Amino acid sequence: AWKGAPVIEGRGGWSFKPRGRFNFDAGVVDAPSGTGVDDGFGSEARRIRLGVEGDIPGGFGYKVEVDFAEGAEITDAILTYGSGGATITIGQHNNFQSLDELTSSRFTSHIERAAFTDAFGFERLLGVSAEYLSGDVLIQGGVFSDNIEDLPGERWGVDGRAVYLPKIGDSQMHLGGSLHYADIAPADSLRYRYRPLVHFTDTRFVDTRSFDARSERGIGLESAFISGPFHAAGEAFWQTVSRPGDIEDADFFGGYAEVGYFLTSGDTRGYKAGVFDRVKPANPVGEGGFGALQVNLRYDYLDLTDGVITGGMQNGYIASLVWTPTDYTRFLMSYGRLAYDGAVIPAKDGETSYSVDSLGVRAQIDF
Amino acid sequence: AWKGAPVIEGRGGWSFKPRGRFNFDAGVVDAPSGTGVDDGFGSEARRIRLGVEGDIPGGFGYKVEVDFAEGAEITDAILTYGSGGATITIGQHNNFQSLDELTSSRFTSHIERAAFTDAFGFERLLGVSAEYLSGDVLIQGGVFSDNIEDLPGERWGVDGRAVYLPKIGDSQMHLGGSLHYADIAPADSLRYRYRPLVHFTDTRFVDTRSFDARSERGIGLESAFISGPFHAAGEAFWQTVSRPGDIEDADFFGGYAEVGYFLTSGDTRGYKAGVFDRVKPANPVGEGGFGALQVNLRYDYLDLTDGVITGGMQNGYIASLVWTPTDYTRFLMSYGRLAYDGAVIPAKDGETSYSVDSLGVRAQIDF
Amino acid sequence: AWKGAPVIEGRGGWSFKPRGRFNFDAGVVDAPSGTGVDDGFGSEARRIRLGVEGDIPGGFGYKVEVDFAEGAEITDAILTYGSGGATITIGQHNNFQSLDELTSSRFTSHIERAAFTDAFGFERLLGVSAEYLSGDVLIQGGVFSDNIEDLPGERWGVDGRAVYLPKIGDSQMHLGGSLHYADIAPADSLRYRYRPLVHFTDTRFVDTRSFDARSERGIGLESAFISGPFHAAGEAFWQTVSRPGDIEDADFFGGYAEVGYFLTSGDTRGYKAGVFDRVKPANPVGEGGFGALQVNLRYDYLDLTDGVITGGMQNGYIASLVWTPTDYTRFLMSYGRLAYDGAVIPAKDGETSYSVDSLGVRAQIDF
Repeated sequence: AWKGAPVIEGRGGWSFKPRGRFNFDAGVVDAPSGTGVDDGFGSEARRIRLGVEGDIPGGFGYKVEVDFAEGAEITDAILTYGSGGATITIGQHNNFQSLDELTSSRFTSHIERAAFTDAFGFERLLGVSAEYLSGDVLIQGGVFSDNIEDLPGERWGVDGRAVYLPKIGDSQMHLGGSLHYADIAPADSLRYRYRPLVHFTDTRFVDTRSFDARSERGIGLESAFISGPFHAAGEAFWQTVSRPGDIEDADFFGGYAEVGYFLTSGDTRGYKAGVFDRVKPANPVGEGGFGALQVNLRYDYLDLTDGVITGGMQNGYIASLVWTPTDYTRFLMSYGRLAYDGAVIPAKDGETSYSVDSLGVRAQIDF
Repeated sequence: AWKGAPVIEGRGGWSFKPRGRFNFDAGVVDAPSGTGVDDGFGSEARRIRLGVEGDIPGGFGYKVEVDFAEGAEITDAILTYGSGGATITIGQHNNFQSLDELTSSRFTSHIERAAFTDAFGFERLLGVSAEYLSGDVLIQGGVFSDNIEDLPGERWGVDGRAVYLPKIGDSQMHLGGSLHYADIAPADSLRYRYRPLVHFTDTRFVDTRSFDARSERGIGLESAFISGPFHAAGEAFWQTVSRPGDIEDADFFGGYAEVGYFLTSGDTRGYKAGVFDRVKPANPVGEGGFGALQVNLRYDYLDLTDGVITGGMQNGYIASLVWTPTDYTRFLMSYGRLAYDGAVIPAKDGETSYSVDSLGVRAQIDF
Repeated sequence: AWKGAPVIEGRGGWSFKPRGRFNFDAGVVDAPSGTGVDDGFGSEARRIRLGVEGDIPGGFGYKVEVDFAEGAEITDAILTYGSGGATITIGQHNNFQSLDELTSSRFTSHIERAAFTDAFGFERLLGVSAEYLSGDVLIQGGVFSDNIEDLPGERWGVDGRAVYLPKIGDSQMHLGGSLHYADIAPADSLRYRYRPLVHFTDTRFVDTRSFDARSERGIGLESAFISGPFHAAGEAFWQTVSRPGDIEDADFFGGYAEVGYFLTSGDTRGYKAGVFDRVKPANPVGEGGFGALQVNLRYDYLDLTDGVITGGMQNGYIASLVWTPTDYTRFLMSYGRLAYDGAVIPAKDGETSYSVDSLGVRAQIDF
């Protein structure tokens, strides 16, 4: 078999497949000149991931991927055991927060994910989890420590997610919710912040700065709908931080709503087991076709201000054009107008309400 | 062919095989409260290794493996030339010290190796070596500089090892000895120390601290015996350090004795070419069996005190339970009661004789 | 197919191939004792590279390689699209400067490349380029930012190269030229310097030290000739640096001339698409032959002094012996006598004109 790379199969249930994904990004960020932000053109290798996955007789499996874009960082590194619709996973993996976060970066509708998924620090964690998929219902839950890069450490947490994913005629529905709790070690602090849509800049206009925290609680709601060339998706996420001593809890919020449409006929957004999946063009380049061309619009909201923590607020208006020439190649262009209130970088005369324009392009291959 | 991953073979003697091993560890360390050691629960990705090996027509071969658990560190990286029973190796590889060290971490009987192998700093070194295996005799020797991570540098050394490995009826005997010499660069110093059985803590109760050294001499004795479900092994290692000027040599010692037994019928410990090898369960999971279940007991001794160097002494009593569901999966649980004398972390009232309890579990897949 | 590693092919134009190259170096550098340079013996893993390449239906392709010799550094990381003789490349790749630089390190005639290619900082850069090969003419050009390791940053540049590569009877001709421009970011500076032939030392006898720069312009000329066992090659490279304010431009120069000859009959140096290619021994080891044995002589000149920048001058006389037992294995020995004028490390009595002897050996496997 071939899935971007050869799937080599042996007798008795063995399999082995190389994995990889490569994203090259470039673009511009344009902030009001009074901010002193010297941005303009930027570029980077956003992701350079190589890895392997495989099956082992007896129901076992593994997946490991390393990102070389900045040094070498482990992304997924898991051992699995599956039986029926149930799967047990040990290792570093996503802790079941947000449809946009759980959807692979290979299949997102914009160059970067929704602001709250980065701002609230969603990332892969070392842990043990179980999931069960039966008919239209998916249940996931696990206990987690921290990202391998941050271990040894004393952070631990519990996460759960449930999704109802019925197929109604030819349309795919998705309704889900997630709960998150993490105990923050006394020595650690939290910091929520967000880049202006593109990753090749290190400037953040919204930023809580570091603050002391005892624990973190998150509640997420997810919805999505796919029907032929059209899709819509929306999420809301409430993050609450317990602070030490008598300090009141801090409440933050983020969410987005998006619609997308394929201009090329016969194309639709992939969906599988509770997340968006690969787009497979009906008429790919190389077989006489043009590939799939999709436009997406997103409104992206983030509020990082509560009480004494004044991280700022963002209203993002984002449009993207995604060209998928073949199953395993993609070119994306995302434009965002990000309107800030209470931005942490003041513009002329101390003004903290202004807009930033951001444009990013990406070339992608995965296997 | 398939050995956990596909072995791809070409005409004329070509071969190519991916390699990997993944260890996820968790556990607890419990030290007397007076020590101020805040341990309790810990977890880590102990090893995340990916690599390749292959044969090249003409008798050449290579093996390379990188560990991504903490950044990216090269473990094995060798070119080989073989003819008859002789093999020449160039690159980073183990310098022929200790049966427990030379046995792959995939096949050890406890979650970590004997204390002296870590304490005396056994690790892979860049060097050139030759080995010869003929009938019941194995001879190995080479010259080595330093670990690639520590190069450029001026350390160099010589190592040799001989093993007599007759098969007596169905039983495997192993009797060996090794000699080690390393010249320490004037700018470098030595430090011998040991974690309490598990690797996810950075606390060491025995520790010589850094001391000046001119050279290092080691003598090791090895013995092992495998008969059906039963195995026994024991080693002793004398490490002597020449110190600068008129300071007397410092002598350190470590050793262990262990026995193990498979509770599942038909299982035995693997052995090959002077080291322990893979356990292949007689009745693996996935073919109606339970896999192999083995219990092991070890007494592990380490003395890091001599003259003015007071690194402390450890008497370790260790038990492990190793479940091997299939050839390429393992789950280990190791418990150790480590009795210290002259521990470098004093407990209440300056007491340096006390015991530490340590429990570790591991999930492992390799290919 | 097999090219050092299996080339796995799927239907519709898919392919996948692992890549790797391993260089283990050792040797000695002997400088006048008055310099205080404590060199003597050195060793290192010069390159430990692993990666993959592949084709994707529709004309797309990719190549990624990571070097693990010092941490994990991305070397090539590209996506390509090809049609007819034209290729578009996105990602990190060489920016078309110098035949010796563009020839893979697997196929160079000496242990290290010509001095100017290192001194002037030629390295892979993130960029977009196009190339066109038609008959005897190769045209290459692109725009580039910086090496991935140095991003984010504000460096950008333009590069172009043209080569005329006719075959005259059985002889291969090569005549080429390249132009280079790079805009240096205000915050950055330049530093040109060169190791004494071998890479395992960090000493540089010629070194401009850091100096402010606005931009960099380079002009290169290339020539080469291969006829049976004989080859000759020569290059010249003028590097001009625009300096800030009223400071005059700084001009530097480097170049080399070399000849090589195979002592084993039937062997010749490979050449392909504007660069030297793999040597495939007529009578390899393993098929009753000795492999290919080649001697090479090179004169290597570098001038890093102009105006107030006194980096020194080098006249290098270099001889190498290259044994290629099989297509994918090589052993090299390079000896260089490097005569310096204006060396930046003074010898006894402040003398800066002296010679350094350098000897390096390398064991290599690639696939």
